[in-house]
Amino acid sequence: MDIADLTPELLPYLGQAAYFELGMFENLAQAIRLAPDLDSKEGLSAAAGRALAKHQGLVAEIRRRGGEPAEVMAPFAPALDDFRAKTMGADWHELLLSCYLAGGLLDDFFIRLSDGLPGDVGPRVAHLLGQGAGTDVLVKHLKTAIDGSPGLGSHLALWGRRLVGDTLLVARSAIPAAVPADGASVPAHGPAPAHGPASAHGEAQIEPVFTELIAAHTRRMDGLGLTA
Amino acid sequence: MDIADLTPELLPYLGQAAYFELGMFENLAQAIRLAPDLDSKEGLSAAAGRALAKHQGLVAEIRRRGGEPAEVMAPFAPALDDFRAKTMGADWHELLLSCYLAGGLLDDFFIRLSDGLPGDVGPRVAHLLGQGAGTDVLVKHLKTAIDGSPGLGSHLALWGRRLVGDTLLVARSAIPAAVPADGASVPAHGPAPAHGPASAHGEAQIEPVFTELIAAHTRRMDGLGLTA
Repeated sequence: MDIADLTPELLPYLGQAAYFELGMFENLAQAIRLAPDLDSKEGLSAAAGRALAKHQGLVAEIRRRGGEPAEVMAPFAPALDDFRAKTMGADWHELLLSCYLAGGLLDDFFIRLSDGLPGDVGPRVAHLLGQGAGTDVLVKHLKTAIDGSPGLGSHLALWGRRLVGDTLLVARSAIPAAVPADGASVPAHGPAPAHGPASAHGEAQIEPVFTELIAAHTRRMDGLGLTA
Repeated sequence: MDIADLTPELLPYLGQAAYFELGMFENLAQAIRLAPDLDSKEGLSAAAGRALAKHQGLVAEIRRRGGEPAEVMAPFAPALDDFRAKTMGADWHELLLSCYLAGGLLDDFFIRLSDGLPGDVGPRVAHLLGQGAGTDVLVKHLKTAIDGSPGLGSHLALWGRRLVGDTLLVARSAIPAAVPADGASVPAHGPAPAHGPASAHGEAQIEPVFTELIAAHTRRMDGLGLTA
């Protein structure tokens, strides 16, 4: 499979990834606000800093190509704002789990797609997104809470299963419209409709990527002792 | 005047400055949340990143000395949380002005005090805090809003005058209890009471520092076309 078939054009790719990382940063800033003690605030501030550095690195790539970051990100704002609203959670633990699971899955996803980017930008973006996400602190707080509170594990397992569906839809929307079975070309830039019809050909290419993403998601859930 | 007389001990100094910068970061993250458009979000994210880098740099200095950041910051949390609550403002423009004025004044103040720190930490901290604060974006949005909205200037001028009082109290609380006129030594660490009695000797040392801080504050107000 050639991953380049699944990779959007460069500026839309950078715009969606940059806006996603800005949202991750905003979620982590919210997690800092809700943190019950100074030690948690302190640890989360490092994670927020990583998300911000990713956002800023992607914005720098947009500028390097003469793009205006706000314009390049704008087409992705409504769907990603909606995603954030749906996955913000009702309390600190749900929010931490969202940051951990959605951040992990979509970083993985954008890294995977970066293989298909032209020139030397792919490896640079993969390096940027692959840097430790500072999520150890999320795992630490979630584990402590799950161990200390009977019932929280099954509650968060449900939340995690709900999150993965919404998160995969974001990933799906990044992939250009699938090539129809008759081979007629379709515009390959801009977000594809999340639920749009896709030919068997397109889906056959996409499936292994999503299988990998879901496997990594399951490992994250397992690591927390949650049933995926 | 020897500034070292006014400088708190190293760990309390670092703890107060680090917690202040964490609060600046949280305020800027809130400003990002409230920003009316993507372009503003994008510009503010750089300012938030600077505040976070200052916080993290100060935390690294605390760790280098074997301090536990949360413990070292904790004594300053109640007063600084109260300060943030009072200066958060009722809307985006009030918040931006708080970030600009309080951030500017207290960065100046901590830089001034850093001259009195022992060893090589003073210049390092001064360099860290003196880095461009990314506040151009705050000034740009405030100027645009003031020019475009009759009445906003006088409203924000009032808000700025209120802010400076609360901000100077934070600065005052960082200075160790003043040396009494009879020269008896007093504990020189920990926050001094903001309104505590100070001898004429102590106040005579403090006054020129505060005169400088207020002059710089007035220049910031003037730069926005606000009457200080």
